[in-house]
Amino acid sequence: MSNNLVAHVQSVNAERRSELKNQHPVVIWLTGLSGAGKSSIANALELALCDSGKHTYLLDGDNIRLGLCKDLGFSDADRVENIRRISEVAKLFLDAGLIVITAFISPFMRDRALAREVIGDTTFIEVFVDAPLSECMRRDPKGLYKKAEQGLIKNFTGIDSAYEPPANPDIRINTLENDIDTCIAQILEYLKVPRT
Amino acid sequence: MSNNLVAHVQSVNAERRSELKNQHPVVIWLTGLSGAGKSSIANALELALCDSGKHTYLLDGDNIRLGLCKDLGFSDADRVENIRRISEVAKLFLDAGLIVITAFISPFMRDRALAREVIGDTTFIEVFVDAPLSECMRRDPKGLYKKAEQGLIKNFTGIDSAYEPPANPDIRINTLENDIDTCIAQILEYLKVPRT
Repeated sequence: MSNNLVAHVQSVNAERRSELKNQHPVVIWLTGLSGAGKSSIANALELALCDSGKHTYLLDGDNIRLGLCKDLGFSDADRVENIRRISEVAKLFLDAGLIVITAFISPFMRDRALAREVIGDTTFIEVFVDAPLSECMRRDPKGLYKKAEQGLIKNFTGIDSAYEPPANPDIRINTLENDIDTCIAQILEYLKVPRT
Repeated sequence: MSNNLVAHVQSVNAERRSELKNQHPVVIWLTGLSGAGKSSIANALELALCDSGKHTYLLDGDNIRLGLCKDLGFSDADRVENIRRISEVAKLFLDAGLIVITAFISPFMRDRALAREVIGDTTFIEVFVDAPLSECMRRDPKGLYKKAEQGLIKNFTGIDSAYEPPANPDIRINTLENDIDTCIAQILEYLKVPRT
């Protein structure tokens, strides 16, 4: 075998992997304040895509912050590294032929620009999950705004850390005025995936 | 929508994702010296699985060291962190329903034990790609042993850094005595995937 070992072996590439799945892989990057609805949108979107026979994966705080990025905190430097790793992992999933949904606040424009650069402009879809801060604070699904206002959480986006809204997102979802089905329909239409 | 946002949304889980792919996701963890044949085995194995309609992904130095782990060097601490991140990413791919192949020297038993712990005992398949050091040095496909012997590369496994062979691997592949087809057949048989 020794000579064969270094010989060229035909390998499986991104095109072959996505052909098998009969789909065009993209990264759907959700950004928005805590409480804006990213997790709900992400879960409902993945379900809708899966019901349409699409091969998907969802990267969110639950599977990233407790695993790959459990060594990182919430300082500016750690947030940058967090987004960098998520971008690199999303790129791997893209290479695997999957439709990837990411659901992270990702508050800084420069980090989202880095994500777009890592992932590739033509496969990066920035979705601004938009709701006013006042509404997000009213919803406060995890009680985090309350804790941040009490000073129990530091560097909380919208309270003592900035959220920089996308200037020109590929899709803008208004979760104040629209229900979840309307939001999902809007994304599916952009992706040209017929709703089942 | 505000009330719906916090309501429970049915989500897509690992079972649903693998059902769609009609397969049982596992991580096939190749370990062995540089030049033992990990990359060749990994590529040929992915191709064979893909030809059988399986949904796969390959994690190797090419897509990990230049991306997710580009901030890491080859010190002991960095090697541990490298394997930790690879394990966490492999776990995500497993959750996505894919059959994952990893091709890294992964020289230390404690790191492979950590990988098994992160990934899960029932889904972690340790494959020892075995060839004597003398043979790997003779093959030296990338000229790395030569550089290491000249002192141009430090901490090189087999030269000035240890390789701890698996005591009880799930599969042992002998690339000195067997050709690549035999090695692949051995792994496919273990996986109960009929060769196409």
